[in-house]
Formats: sequence, structure tokens, C-alpha cells
Amino acid sequence: MGGVIMNQLNHRQANARIQVLNPDGSPAAGRTVSIDQVSHQFLFGCGAFDAVELMRTQDDRKRTFLQERMEKWLKLFNYGTLPFYWGRYEPEEGKTVYPETMAAARWLRERGVQVKGHPLCWHTACAPWLMQYSNDEILRRQLERIHRDVSAFKDVIGLWDVINEVVIMPVFDKYDNAITRICRELGRVPLVKAVFAAAKETDPDAVLLINDFNTSKAYEHLIEDLLEAEVPISAIGIQSHQHQGYWGLEKLYNVLERFSRFGLPIHFTENTLISGDIMPAHIVDLNDWQVEEWPSTPEGEDRQAREISEMYSVLFSHPQVEAITTWDFNDGCWLKAPSGFVHQDNSEKPSYHALNQLIHGDWETHETLTADSSGYVSFTGFKGGYTVRTDAGSAGFTLEKDLHQQLTLND
Amino acid sequence: MGGVIMNQLNHRQANARIQVLNPDGSPAAGRTVSIDQVSHQFLFGCGAFDAVELMRTQDDRKRTFLQERMEKWLKLFNYGTLPFYWGRYEPEEGKTVYPETMAAARWLRERGVQVKGHPLCWHTACAPWLMQYSNDEILRRQLERIHRDVSAFKDVIGLWDVINEVVIMPVFDKYDNAITRICRELGRVPLVKAVFAAAKETDPDAVLLINDFNTSKAYEHLIEDLLEAEVPISAIGIQSHQHQGYWGLEKLYNVLERFSRFGLPIHFTENTLISGDIMPAHIVDLNDWQVEEWPSTPEGEDRQAREISEMYSVLFSHPQVEAITTWDFNDGCWLKAPSGFVHQDNSEKPSYHALNQLIHGDWETHETLTADSSGYVSFTGFKGGYTVRTDAGSAGFTLEKDLHQQLTLND
Repeated sequence: MGGVIMNQLNHRQANARIQVLNPDGSPAAGRTVSIDQVSHQFLFGCGAFDAVELMRTQDDRKRTFLQERMEKWLKLFNYGTLPFYWGRYEPEEGKTVYPETMAAARWLRERGVQVKGHPLCWHTACAPWLMQYSNDEILRRQLERIHRDVSAFKDVIGLWDVINEVVIMPVFDKYDNAITRICRELGRVPLVKAVFAAAKETDPDAVLLINDFNTSKAYEHLIEDLLEAEVPISAIGIQSHQHQGYWGLEKLYNVLERFSRFGLPIHFTENTLISGDIMPAHIVDLNDWQVEEWPSTPEGEDRQAREISEMYSVLFSHPQVEAITTWDFNDGCWLKAPSGFVHQDNSEKPSYHALNQLIHGDWETHETLTADSSGYVSFTGFKGGYTVRTDAGSAGFTLEKDLHQQLTLND
Repeated sequence: MGGVIMNQLNHRQANARIQVLNPDGSPAAGRTVSIDQVSHQFLFGCGAFDAVELMRTQDDRKRTFLQERMEKWLKLFNYGTLPFYWGRYEPEEGKTVYPETMAAARWLRERGVQVKGHPLCWHTACAPWLMQYSNDEILRRQLERIHRDVSAFKDVIGLWDVINEVVIMPVFDKYDNAITRICRELGRVPLVKAVFAAAKETDPDAVLLINDFNTSKAYEHLIEDLLEAEVPISAIGIQSHQHQGYWGLEKLYNVLERFSRFGLPIHFTENTLISGDIMPAHIVDLNDWQVEEWPSTPEGEDRQAREISEMYSVLFSHPQVEAITTWDFNDGCWLKAPSGFVHQDNSEKPSYHALNQLIHGDWETHETLTADSSGYVSFTGFKGGYTVRTDAGSAGFTLEKDLHQQLTLND
């Protein structure tokens, strides 16, 4: 199947024919024109939980350390996921971590990063204080919580994982929790419909995702039922935590094929590829794998870099994929896994450089052209934001589709 | 004594002789030159607690309302006081409201506002959880708290009320509290020395204030003892809550005379003049005046505007005064008093316009001049930041003292 990765990237690119005009309005005839892509339309994402920690910490050394980490993060990514786990976001009823979360969202937005909130409804990491209420009250509070948070963050958060892991939700039996209770009583489709309606009503422009680690037929069937019920799903979220080994091309193509048939955008929302020993296959719930240490190894780091390059290349080639989010930026987060682009001390791993080479090398357009006698330049570039520069000045434009326009430079 | 207010403002002004050069370096000979003051060296301050509330609230309507309020605030002031009352800042040991306080400080700084933290040590509004500890432990935690907070805010907060109301501190007997305990054991001077040392060590560049409502001989004596003990006081803070009626010129000049003899800058840190009935004189502790409602009246609003104009004029005329902070921006805050520049609904009171006329009218320099044949303009202006503009371009400069310089405009 390897031959299928053939840089089929036409859908990521567009043609531009631009008449460049000097600041005085005359054509930039014969001038050397530098064309530089400065941002991407595609969402290259990563968990950005440390942005919240950066806003929260009062420790100078920790702040400096996290600042350094987030600077490396910002060099790679244009899209960040912030935590909204109800139990952590509102540990006591009415007492939220809104201020640091909002500060983090603003901080990212000011740096050109789009932000997704994760998740608005989930049975895991849920608020324990909800369990004192009747199911009616739990649902009422769940919808109220969605209204409150989507509304408060409307100016800075444009995407939400509205509901997480619905396939297992009503049959989840590890421990009692408020959300499994209401999902069991209402059923999956009515609950998903209710939470999506609450989010949509509050921010009609937001991109609303359903998200699951289950990539079986069961998730396909659920999506069918939800679309049948007219749930306003903007994009299908696919988790791909590969602690037990890289999916490989066969599974990847299979998942893409099965979930693309709905005609909706696909987001890879939680991707993990590790640079150490892989977790034994007999572990069913990844959370059951509790280790003291999970070291990164030199061979593991080379493998991780290769797998990341391959997987991102496949996904970037698929026309329906609009976003890929790697879950952990650094090692030692979830399950202590060596799952990051940087080690715990922020030093870069081969995967950091490999992904940087793709995003800001192979998939980014930089051209030096000579304008013709009427000031025209033509090029094919990856979709995103651009600057155009000559000795006389510069200007910016956005390449979203084939484009034919005049552009007057500012001096 | 009224005759003494004679706009003796030479110390607030400086002379500028500027040779204005066109972008190409030639003198702007004969050009019309607009000189506009855009900021003040003097600190025109106000309580900015609502900036923290703005960062904290998750309610859309409240956010819009507070945003509108802070926009009016920003039109008048360049200096804001943020709350650091230990009991509110750290309601449970280790759980602080750092995120929203930092977000508010950054928000103000980004808008050109200097920020003061108030206070680092005070017996009132102190943390109740401190009382479980021995005096040694209380002191240790007090100093640690100063290190932690001054360090965390070093980049955004340049001034601190290090210790508040020391005159009454060891004899304060309304209720038991941790700070009165340690002040009683150590004595005033050693405690003040210790807290100033902790602040100075953490941020040697910060402006460190002592602050008191007591303006009697007792405060003078305390300051003498502190200076004798080489406590690094940067400025003397004077509170002037005038709920029981305007001090009047006699008291004002008397306080200025007695506290200027130390040769230190004087900050009026907490000024209140109300626009309603005044509190009866028999009330000794202002906090004992508990009313259901304290209305603002038309006559009261006119009186407040006159008193504010007079008091600010006297203080601005005094060479040692560097800052005046009005405590409440809006009515209905402390003691529910009608003490603001705006009503509770954000509508402006006469005092708002009166103070605006002083700060951004009488005490702000705007000139339209004609450059001489060598491009020179000369003027006398209030100290602060300026822009210079001609048809050919503009540039900025700061007027801190008499100035003779060339300035090349940017186009």
C-alpha cells in the first residue's frame, strides 16, 4: 500500500495569479518578488494544556520552563486543545478555573492559534458533585454548563469536542458517574442531540465535533443514527492513541474509507505515537497500564519520527481530513508515555524535526519569482496566509482557492 | 488660604526646543507642527478591582457591563490599584486567585496603565487560616507570601503598598488576627523592616510604599523611626477617605507640610469624596456606619465635583506629590457610599467631567506651532509622552525635563 502515499496534495493547494503593483500604483514590472507562506489553512494541532498551567503557575522557574516549552509548541502548531473536563474545570459546583483557562485561550489566540475546547460532555473526569442530583437535574446542569462555557468563550474558542466516547458511554461500568447515568436513561442519540443543540444554540458558528476512540462499526452506526436524527455534527473526531503500536497504513486507510463516506470533515483529534517500548496487546483499557517509568529509547525515537511522518502524510493527502492533533506535546503526560515531540526537559526529539520538516518545509510555499512586464507573478501554493515582498514594499493575502487579483504593496 | 492655589505648576512642566526634521532629514522649515501630549508622568490613579472581576466573570452581560465601565476608567486614568488582600487573594492556603489577578494586571499594562498591588501586609482582610500557626510561622509565611507575589508579578506590577495601617496595627482590638499578633510581638519597626526587606530583595526596582489613614503625629513618628532604621520606603502613602466631609484646604496643607518634611515622594493612595449626605462625625471607625442605602444627590454631586477639583489642584501643585488615587471608580462600593465618578449604572457624574477637564484639559499640552526657518519649535508642556506631527510624518518623544533635541519624522 506504500505506493499510495504519492503527495496527492492538489486539494491542499491553489493557483495564484497576482498583478503586483508598487505603492504608487504602477506595475512591479521585472521586479524580484518574494512569496512567503506565513500560516496554514490546515489545522496542525496539539494539546495545549500547559498554556493553562503557564497562566496558573506562580513559580518563576516553572513559568520560564513552560514558556520555553510553549515557544517550541508555537513554532510547530497553529491549533491547540484546551481542557474542559468538568471535574477539573469546576471541582466544586460554581467554582471554575475559568480565569486561567480564558487567559490561556487569549494567549493562544494572540499568537495566531485556533483553539478547541475538550470536552463539554464525557463520563470520565466528570464532576463527582453531580452525582448527588436526580437524572433530570444532571441533564439540566449539563446543558446549562454547555450554555455557560460556550457562551463565555465564544470570542476565543471556535471549535468544541461536544461529546466524547459516546459508544461506550451508557455501558461504561468501571465506576458510577453522572453522565453514564443520564446516557443510560435517555439513550445515546437523544443525549447527543441535546448536548449538540445546546452548543449550536449558544454559538451557531462554532465547529462542533463528536469524538471517539472506538473506530469500529459501532461508531459508524452511531454517526448514521445521529445524522438521521439531524444532529448538527460539523466534523467527525477520531482518536488514535497508538500506545500499543502504530496502526499502519492498512488500518489507517480502512478508517479513513469507512468514516469519509458520511461526507463530513474528519479531524484526527487525539493522536499518540510513542518513542519507547509499546504497550502489550492484551491491555484493553489503556488506563490499566500503570508503570513507574516508560523510557524513550533511541530506536523508539527514530521509529516514532518515521511513523509520524508517514501517518501525517497519509492524513494530509486525504481531502476530507481538516485537522490532526497530537495529544501530548512532551513526554511523561498521559500514562507517563514517551509520547511527545520533546522530552520532559523540553529537548527536541527526532519527531519534532520530522514534523517541522513536513509542516514548515514540504507543505509550506516559499517562492522567489520575477514579475513579468505587467507586474504579474503566478504560482501554486499551499492554502493559507501569505506575504508578498519586493524592494518597494510588501502586502499580505490569503490563498483559499484559485485566485486572480491585483495587490498594491505598502511601503 | 484659597489664594494659595495659583497653578504653581512649573515643577510639572518642562521646556522643549525641538528641531523637527522631515523623513528625508531636511529641516521642517515653516511647516505647521502639531504637538500632542499622549500620556502623563504624574500618576492619576483609581481602584481597578473591577479589572479582576472582568477577567473572572463568566456572565456575558456582566462582562459587557464591566467592559463599558473599564473603558470609562481608562479614559481618565493611567494608574490602577489591584487587590492583594491576603484573605481574598488566598482564601485557602495555597489556593490563590493568581490567574485572574495576573490577567487583570496584564490587561491594564497593555492599555498603558501602571499597576500597584495593595497590600502585602495588613491586619484587616487577612487570611483566617494563618491563625492556626505560631507567631514564628505566621511571620515566615508573611515573608514567603511577599517573595512569592512580588516575584510572580515583577513584570507587570511596579508599585506595592507593602504594609497598611501600621499605626493601629499592634493595638487593633476589634478581632483577633495573625498580623496584629506578630506586630504586637515584634513591634512596629521590626515588622515593617522585615516586610520591606522581603519586597526590596525580590524586586529592587519596585516603588515600595507604607500607607496609613492615620495622618496624626503618630504616623510622622513612625516614619521617623522607620527611616532611622533604614527601611527602604520609596514613597509615603496617605489615605484620605472623607466620608465625614471634605478635609478642606487647612487640613490638606497641614498634612502636606508635615509629611513633606521627610523629603520623600507623597502618594495620596485612597481618596474618597462623596456625593451624598456626609457620615456623622461621631462615627470613629468608618466601618461602623452600616446603611441600607446611601443615595447620591444633585447638590452632593455638584459639591463632590468642586471638592475633587480643589483637592486635585492642591495636590498637583505640590512638588512632592507624585500620585493621587481615588478609591472607588463607581458608587456603591465600600460602605455603599456615593463615592464614585460614575453611578452604579456607569453613567457619569459631574466629578467625572470635572476631573477629566483637569487631567485631559488644563493639565495636558496640545499646541499647533509653526517651525522656524531651521525647523525649530519651542514650547512648555506638562511632563509625559508626546507625538509631533506635520503633513510629512510623525514621531514620538518623552518630556521629562528641559529638552533640546533633533527629531526625525517617520512617514
